Amino acid sequence: MPRVGFVGLGMMGGRIAGRLLGAGHTVTGHNRTRAKAEWLLAEGMRWAESPRAAVEASEVTFSMVTGTAALRAVTEGPDGVLAGLGPGKVYVDMSTVSPAASQELAGRVAERGAAMLDAPVSGSVVTLEEGRLSIMVGGDRQVVDRVLPILRDIGPTVTHVGPNGRAVLMKIATNLSLAVQLVAFSEGVLLAAKAGIPRETAVEVLLHSVIASPMLRYRGPFVLKPPQEAWFNVDMMQKDLLLALEAGRELDVPLPTTALSNQLLTTARAMGLQERDYATVFTVLARMSGLEE
Amino acid sequence: MPRVGFVGLGMMGGRIAGRLLGAGHTVTGHNRTRAKAEWLLAEGMRWAESPRAAVEASEVTFSMVTGTAALRAVTEGPDGVLAGLGPGKVYVDMSTVSPAASQELAGRVAERGAAMLDAPVSGSVVTLEEGRLSIMVGGDRQVVDRVLPILRDIGPTVTHVGPNGRAVLMKIATNLSLAVQLVAFSEGVLLAAKAGIPRETAVEVLLHSVIASPMLRYRGPFVLKPPQEAWFNVDMMQKDLLLALEAGRELDVPLPTTALSNQLLTTARAMGLQERDYATVFTVLARMSGLEE
Amino acid sequence: MPRVGFVGLGMMGGRIAGRLLGAGHTVTGHNRTRAKAEWLLAEGMRWAESPRAAVEASEVTFSMVTGTAALRAVTEGPDGVLAGLGPGKVYVDMSTVSPAASQELAGRVAERGAAMLDAPVSGSVVTLEEGRLSIMVGGDRQVVDRVLPILRDIGPTVTHVGPNGRAVLMKIATNLSLAVQLVAFSEGVLLAAKAGIPRETAVEVLLHSVIASPMLRYRGPFVLKPPQEAWFNVDMMQKDLLLALEAGRELDVPLPTTALSNQLLTTARAMGLQERDYATVFTVLARMSGLEE
Amino acid sequence: MPRVGFVGLGMMGGRIAGRLLGAGHTVTGHNRTRAKAEWLLAEGMRWAESPRAAVEASEVTFSMVTGTAALRAVTEGPDGVLAGLGPGKVYVDMSTVSPAASQELAGRVAERGAAMLDAPVSGSVVTLEEGRLSIMVGGDRQVVDRVLPILRDIGPTVTHVGPNGRAVLMKIATNLSLAVQLVAFSEGVLLAAKAGIPRETAVEVLLHSVIASPMLRYRGPFVLKPPQEAWFNVDMMQKDLLLALEAGRELDVPLPTTALSNQLLTTARAMGLQERDYATVFTVLARMSGLEE
Repeated sequence: MPRVGFVGLGMMGGRIAGRLLGAGHTVTGHNRTRAKAEWLLAEGMRWAESPRAAVEASEVTFSMVTGTAALRAVTEGPDGVLAGLGPGKVYVDMSTVSPAASQELAGRVAERGAAMLDAPVSGSVVTLEEGRLSIMVGGDRQVVDRVLPILRDIGPTVTHVGPNGRAVLMKIATNLSLAVQLVAFSEGVLLAAKAGIPRETAVEVLLHSVIASPMLRYRGPFVLKPPQEAWFNVDMMQKDLLLALEAGRELDVPLPTTALSNQLLTTARAMGLQERDYATVFTVLARMSGLEE
Repeated sequence: MPRVGFVGLGMMGGRIAGRLLGAGHTVTGHNRTRAKAEWLLAEGMRWAESPRAAVEASEVTFSMVTGTAALRAVTEGPDGVLAGLGPGKVYVDMSTVSPAASQELAGRVAERGAAMLDAPVSGSVVTLEEGRLSIMVGGDRQVVDRVLPILRDIGPTVTHVGPNGRAVLMKIATNLSLAVQLVAFSEGVLLAAKAGIPRETAVEVLLHSVIASPMLRYRGPFVLKPPQEAWFNVDMMQKDLLLALEAGRELDVPLPTTALSNQLLTTARAMGLQERDYATVFTVLARMSGLEE
Repeated sequence: MPRVGFVGLGMMGGRIAGRLLGAGHTVTGHNRTRAKAEWLLAEGMRWAESPRAAVEASEVTFSMVTGTAALRAVTEGPDGVLAGLGPGKVYVDMSTVSPAASQELAGRVAERGAAMLDAPVSGSVVTLEEGRLSIMVGGDRQVVDRVLPILRDIGPTVTHVGPNGRAVLMKIATNLSLAVQLVAFSEGVLLAAKAGIPRETAVEVLLHSVIASPMLRYRGPFVLKPPQEAWFNVDMMQKDLLLALEAGRELDVPLPTTALSNQLLTTARAMGLQERDYATVFTVLARMSGLEE
Repeated sequence: MPRVGFVGLGMMGGRIAGRLLGAGHTVTGHNRTRAKAEWLLAEGMRWAESPRAAVEASEVTFSMVTGTAALRAVTEGPDGVLAGLGPGKVYVDMSTVSPAASQELAGRVAERGAAMLDAPVSGSVVTLEEGRLSIMVGGDRQVVDRVLPILRDIGPTVTHVGPNGRAVLMKIATNLSLAVQLVAFSEGVLLAAKAGIPRETAVEVLLHSVIASPMLRYRGPFVLKPPQEAWFNVDMMQKDLLLALEAGRELDVPLPTTALSNQLLTTARAMGLQERDYATVFTVLARMSGLEE
């Protein structure tokens, strides 16, 4: 069983690393803030002082960071991922970044004799813990085959969607529906609420109907009671929508409902709601409906 | 067990009547075109020459027609539903009509000593046949309780959402998400397709992700291969969106993604696609993306 | 010089009647509330006790009311316009109503041997008083020619756009730009304002630029200082947008920016701003931008 | 009278330089392609081999290039504008670029002891030649005062809107209305056209109405007969909208009609219309209305 490295042990990355530990893998992890990784060290994870160290200790290294800029920060420089890579090694980035940036990074990884995959996940912490995570993978098929057993230990569904950069594009193409579905759901709840139907009833009916996607089933109740801590906040969601809109522009695909939902996220920011879970678009529409929240 | 009447035996109404027959109910049905009801007569349904006759032969009569105008046609006049109603009878309309019209009709039913419920369903023919249909009910609770056993024989989930007219409002509030979710899904598929990911792969990934609502799971594949016959065509979908937009206006609820999706359905009509399943909004966006179909 | 009747002497209708008096015409006028017409009686207008009486006293009768329902109220019944019409008379409706309703009324006018024109105006009270009003006319050309001298006394520009009902359609097609232009203008002012440019400067620059339509030149300053009394309030503007959206649906023309602007007017209503001039969409966007107003 | 430099002698820049020559200024100009400047040399303009040479020969140097990247190309490096600047010189950039980039460049100009203004224009070649151009200026007021006589020789209206970067922001805030107004205008023309009103009549009526901004008066007729050469093509217009949307995101201002119009420009690109004048959004909407063009 190959030794596994993991760079970026935040809310999602940390839980994935934990899942790998649970499945019996030897994991060497690095995080910018060590404190957040203590719980993993307690579960047997080895500590790496840098991204490079994590890569050097492993055959296959994963990373999961917050965006294109953060990916540059962990891959470049003398302590970065690239510096540790060499022939035979595989680097799997699970972050949601610009498809172009991911593709370009794969080229630099190849120059060092290693291979890269982009492998973003669809789903949340809850989906992961329920063991229902979907992983999309971009890169060469034989490289995918080599790491498939590890990927299957993270989530059961692994789909090879195409060459480097395509998986992250596919992730972005998925995530635009997260925002749009929640906006439409909110329109429905508010219509019902202003007609005198209790919000709880409206949410219950909607979540037992054919529109109830897994995302709506766990996030829909947030319109009744926001979570104490955002799983995916307005800024994170908007980051993904901006990647989608950028790709739409480059590929000449009009994205009308994405563009409109993005404007509602901007409205959320303007209303001071940027750190809330993106389900707060409900609050935006509620205020636009004259309901003070 | 009360005798059941059924007015309007089209694609959905007919199958619901069939399901009631299958559960052992005595059903007396009427349809504008008798030929379409032959299969139900073969399964034991009794024929009524008019809506009124169906009501007179039954304690509880259902109707399922195509809209507000059709509802007027079957309820008014000497052969209509109203003429047959009297004390002790219950009339359950399952059509998607204007909430105001439904509420007004309930008043006229009450004047005749009978009681009305609006009980639209959420779901398609497939959902019905899988025994997973949700029914929303508007009206007095004690009336709901009386017909509950019959409703449960149609679909397992029955939710009382409020007084008369509220269930149909709730249905409309649900259906706006059908259109919007499919538009957003199409945006995602086209983004992937123009990035070089095969459409089949894109659809598969999306339908294994957290955005995959039951509706998308059965309708999403239509973007690869349209159904031979539309289950719910552009005109039907637009009828529901117009009811939503009308309600939004009356209740002062802005519905931005609904309004935009409605414009794409108008575009579908302008492109000559009005008789296709509303999943053809994918075709609209594909043409807007420069992909000839 | 033919005698002129005038039904509906409100803010706009009254001023048009006044202009006709000023040009030397004999005007017999009727208004639901006589008090509002006192100033015209003082200027020599004759009073008619009913729409029918105004028509009977005149060869050419104008009407200017608030919508399709009001038009029915003044044209039907024993005291209505229709009852007074007969061979040789001309009836010119200047109201903004449904094109279909206008066309149907023209048919009923023809049945009485008279002729009807729809002749809505483009422009406001200010445009009228500056003598720069545009009038669109729908109906038979020879009828238009007969009343042309009177129309020219109202506004200098008279354009025959087609048969009955087309002028009011053209008016609606014009008015959708009123709302959309003001929304876009507001987006620009708010962008500038949040970048630290004084609102007064932003408005001044925009109103000296190539986007400054006559409408924006008089209405743009309202974003700095709303008028004491609305010239054209949110409800009136929304009435016109709904007529446009209805026509778009019937004629299969997608109207995306109209649909979106209409949702912002609904937002204005929800925020309690429905009686303000429609320039209050600026306030809606300002609140959505986190600027409390 | 200070000697004037001019970098970037394209369609607009060249005509501005020509206007300065016509007003009696000594102009030293540089353009990437000398051939395009021959007509100016014939009118007395002196040639500079590089941006730096133009700056060195002048007290006040203007530039007018196609965007942020082009601005970098002419300002940086040993032959760039910055290299030629020094104490007492003024640099006036008239390009439409990112406000942040403009502001940052102003800082570097100041480090060399010179002063910079951003001075974009509102209007087209036609507006310029009619002598009705508006110039917005960002920067220190005393610097503005120094170059005011030259600016007035370009266009009559000069407005100081604030510190560095604000004028270009104001320009962007203006230009979003160009696109939106033309989309709304197209919606109106198509509504009229599908109701049977000749397009020529519809355009004429709209251009005599209160919505007829100067921009619509010259660009509106393009929906009847596109210009042989685009004055401002889809890509240029989209560049400006993207700057607006970027600013909206940074400043938390929702720009719904801008976002939607931008999606229609993407649709134009997808339909292969990117090199046409942006008035081609009419063609996009016409195709969406089922009218083949």
